[in-house]
Amino acid sequence: MTKRYVGIDLGGTNLKLGLVAADGSPIQRQTTPTQADRGPDHVIHRMAQAVRRLADAAGVRTSDVSAVGIGAPGPLDTRDGKVVFAPNLPGWRNIPVRDRLAQALDLPAVLENDANAAAYGEFRCGAGRGTNDMVMLTLGTGVGGGIILGGRLFRGKTDTGAELGHLVINRGGRRCGCGNRGCLEAYASATAVVARTREAIEAGEASALDPAADMTCKDVFDAAAAADPLAERIVDETADALAAGITSILHVLNPDMVVLTGGMMGAGDAFLSDIRRRVHETAFERAWAVCDIRWSTLGGDAGILGAALAAEAADRTGIPA
Amino acid sequence: MTKRYVGIDLGGTNLKLGLVAADGSPIQRQTTPTQADRGPDHVIHRMAQAVRRLADAAGVRTSDVSAVGIGAPGPLDTRDGKVVFAPNLPGWRNIPVRDRLAQALDLPAVLENDANAAAYGEFRCGAGRGTNDMVMLTLGTGVGGGIILGGRLFRGKTDTGAELGHLVINRGGRRCGCGNRGCLEAYASATAVVARTREAIEAGEASALDPAADMTCKDVFDAAAAADPLAERIVDETADALAAGITSILHVLNPDMVVLTGGMMGAGDAFLSDIRRRVHETAFERAWAVCDIRWSTLGGDAGILGAALAAEAADRTGIPA
Repeated sequence: MTKRYVGIDLGGTNLKLGLVAADGSPIQRQTTPTQADRGPDHVIHRMAQAVRRLADAAGVRTSDVSAVGIGAPGPLDTRDGKVVFAPNLPGWRNIPVRDRLAQALDLPAVLENDANAAAYGEFRCGAGRGTNDMVMLTLGTGVGGGIILGGRLFRGKTDTGAELGHLVINRGGRRCGCGNRGCLEAYASATAVVARTREAIEAGEASALDPAADMTCKDVFDAAAAADPLAERIVDETADALAAGITSILHVLNPDMVVLTGGMMGAGDAFLSDIRRRVHETAFERAWAVCDIRWSTLGGDAGILGAALAAEAADRTGIPA
Repeated sequence: MTKRYVGIDLGGTNLKLGLVAADGSPIQRQTTPTQADRGPDHVIHRMAQAVRRLADAAGVRTSDVSAVGIGAPGPLDTRDGKVVFAPNLPGWRNIPVRDRLAQALDLPAVLENDANAAAYGEFRCGAGRGTNDMVMLTLGTGVGGGIILGGRLFRGKTDTGAELGHLVINRGGRRCGCGNRGCLEAYASATAVVARTREAIEAGEASALDPAADMTCKDVFDAAAAADPLAERIVDETADALAAGITSILHVLNPDMVVLTGGMMGAGDAFLSDIRRRVHETAFERAWAVCDIRWSTLGGDAGILGAALAAEAADRTGIPA
């Protein structure tokens, strides 16, 4: 019988679930509100319920699912399967979500950092398919990172490896949400692009963009495409910050591929080409020559697929993905 | 019979050799001029000759040496055992030094980047003993890097991993020897400390240091200890640059230990404490809490020992160190 796995993306707003085959092909999907305000017990109960409903909708018995993978926001302790703390999940402090869900469903479960799960999904069946060493940057509210080395997820000693949004690229520069200054995230998250634009307008720089209106990262990129000088400067600086971060990544990890994903994918191929050009100028030729830089192909599905495939890898090999 | 290994540090000026036991205990050492100006054939001949003399001096037959490790300046192709190019070794372009030395001596040989060899030495029998994931920064003429992950040397896809001197910490900042701007090396090499001091004096900043005299990194640290304001500022900025680089390293690799070595070790423990304090302020607590930051204990011997122990590991396990 074909094996089947469930991937869960545990977000502050929604639980997204996918039932997938062992090769990552999607069979069934569902999204349901997390109801995070009702605390961890309730959320874990909802997760188990959602897995049962998902299997049901696909005409599969829950007991025929081979394993479940959970992608959760960090910090985590993946070895113990615990969420150490999660700013968007009230009450989640040292919650052994892996074992509690496994018990509720009577199925094996694994827990991965959500950015790592997304990177693993992209590695197994997205842009990174066929690579061996792959890095992913998720450019959204923050800048998340995931690292695959030798075909396996790299987590670091205490699951704090691959925090690539907190590479220091501008020592003493912009304040980051983490408290430090000059992190990649302070320049290159979709949120930071909007914040930097607003600040510049408020400081008196001329722009067609209205700082009082809702503004998205895409608005800034669109304004740059329409030759708005401020937006052009912001986009230029964003590409430069990303190139600096990617150059640093190439000089530490020398990978096959860097995949970019998240809200900033809307910036399009010209932006990607610009980043590539800059990395080519600044990185060692021997690192540049073997490293493709691409947009993700799975987009928002990477996290669910990656969580499911991390469960598949652990089920198949007996060791974590 | 106890196995014995030879480590060779192939420098532009000297060949340094060590005969060591399988646990890294030194048995015999030698240093002889490289005579690099006479080209690769001559140097490889001298390397073979030096290994024979070293064994002889220790009362060991060359054929009783189990394997030889070569630490060489890069870029290298360690898989093929070639020096791709070496600025300080005239005529070295794609030279298969590993196989040629192996043939000349009729012994197995391995080739490693010199900074990686030094890191491996420190990991096996220096400050990093007992760790699993260790990073070393060599603060000398440049800033070299070495990474141990899961007890093995990490090289990257084309031996360009661990080029930690070229982490971008000050985007658009000081020009680095590599051509890029803002690399860690442009601030934190011993050479950069002196260059930054000279530039500041030439720009009119007051200091007791004489820019016309020979000046070493140690002179700058000594002047800072004697409360010379310019030297204090330079030392402060150097600690800050190193802390930014180490913070980035913690956020990519989340290792057990970061070891610092090279000419800058003369800066002493107050400098190291200052770096630690800054990293504690800027790195994620979960990464900081498990990562010791230390001076190397092997100093200049790390490269020879590491090259020998890389040969030992390959001999023992059948795969590269």
